[in-house]
Amino acid sequence: MKILLKLKYDGTDFFGYQVQPSRRTVQGVINTACKDLFGYQCDVTGCSRTDRGVHALSFFACISSQTNYPCQVPIDNIPRALNALLPDDISVIRAYNVADDFHPRYDAIAKEYIYLLYDGESKEPFLKNRALILNRKLSDEQIELMNRAVQILCGEHDFASFMAQGSKVTDTHRIIYNADIKRIEGMFDDKLIMLRIKGNGFLYNMVRIIVGTMLEVAYGKIGIEDVLHLLETHDRSSAGNTVQPHGLYLNKVFYKDPLYQ
Amino acid sequence: MKILLKLKYDGTDFFGYQVQPSRRTVQGVINTACKDLFGYQCDVTGCSRTDRGVHALSFFACISSQTNYPCQVPIDNIPRALNALLPDDISVIRAYNVADDFHPRYDAIAKEYIYLLYDGESKEPFLKNRALILNRKLSDEQIELMNRAVQILCGEHDFASFMAQGSKVTDTHRIIYNADIKRIEGMFDDKLIMLRIKGNGFLYNMVRIIVGTMLEVAYGKIGIEDVLHLLETHDRSSAGNTVQPHGLYLNKVFYKDPLYQ
Repeated sequence: MKILLKLKYDGTDFFGYQVQPSRRTVQGVINTACKDLFGYQCDVTGCSRTDRGVHALSFFACISSQTNYPCQVPIDNIPRALNALLPDDISVIRAYNVADDFHPRYDAIAKEYIYLLYDGESKEPFLKNRALILNRKLSDEQIELMNRAVQILCGEHDFASFMAQGSKVTDTHRIIYNADIKRIEGMFDDKLIMLRIKGNGFLYNMVRIIVGTMLEVAYGKIGIEDVLHLLETHDRSSAGNTVQPHGLYLNKVFYKDPLYQ
Repeated sequence: MKILLKLKYDGTDFFGYQVQPSRRTVQGVINTACKDLFGYQCDVTGCSRTDRGVHALSFFACISSQTNYPCQVPIDNIPRALNALLPDDISVIRAYNVADDFHPRYDAIAKEYIYLLYDGESKEPFLKNRALILNRKLSDEQIELMNRAVQILCGEHDFASFMAQGSKVTDTHRIIYNADIKRIEGMFDDKLIMLRIKGNGFLYNMVRIIVGTMLEVAYGKIGIEDVLHLLETHDRSSAGNTVQPHGLYLNKVFYKDPLYQ
């Protein structure tokens, strides 16, 4: 029996998800809290390896013991028990019993990311580390241009141009189910712009390179008609910059069983 | 000629507003940035002395030079110029030319504070240092009870029971113009509850003691009918606890001239 945890975290003070020696990581703090709670070292497996500074509004991780001791803590009490041991920038929302062969990464059928841009003329202290500060205003036309450009990426494509150089992945085809870019109204003086993108999987840095490319469209450096051509080059250097990590949020992870959401 | 700055800051990493030796304070970082920009030491005077951890969505500070040099920077360029020198947790929104006798504190005719409570069952990483985490759910009835209780404080009263002990203020009468407590919908899973309170002035810790007292009403420790009695005792020990500073935001400052808002 394995336990699946649904988590949320502010990535600011973590060196990413994956355990690294003498670094504060998401996997590391979950490991420590689980060992404190269950009394033995658990294997913590995540649904994704988020980079340093990237946030998660919904993140799934499995814990399984290396021993045969059954879990002594009732499943519904695990979030509260782990939250008492975890620091304030990470929270367990729910816990589920799952089958031994469940894998939070390989069993995920889709993921949704969001990326936040702030286009106020001055800085926004409450969005420090939580959105990309553009320091310039985007017009309705520019946002609509980005929204039309991101539609071109929907469907199945070879996203090699949108993958960080040096990545070892060989099959660079992915399916984007839907994506949009729009202004969020009702908070931060209506100066937040959000990209939302859902796909069956994402290459390394793919969302951040897509955002960098969409900004090139907004700024008139490339035209909408160039986006399809970028895909066809299969060349990273033809796409836009990799924007900073702190505007990126893993928003949803989808499994066959809709219970885990 | 003086310059009035409208600011916004996240209070988390400041030891409050007022300059203290070897502490990072709001006044201190503005002092440094102004000296860098204008080339001489400016006197920075604030509209309020917010405590350590308290935030400001709108804060006014005046700068005036000790020399007779006129300001060389056009007024409309000052926000951008100062923002380039200020750290990311504080921002200048606007700058105004004001008369030499203008005082951001004494000329303020009213202030509005908000206080955020989070009543989710688990922690909320993105509200760390930004709301009081209650760790328990409040019902609609409890919120309505608090809202009715806070109405009793509206009008002119002696708020001595709601002032931190040791404060040297002698006239403890203040006027509350309006106040309400309600759930905010559409963000953080509808688990944010906001107190909004506007008055002609506030005693030391007054808003935080009001929130602590309203929570006693919600939890049934005191009845609504006791609130008027609390005011009449003029005794700090009869009111509720002083809740933590990090849920408190100075939201608006009002001057005779509605330009400065």
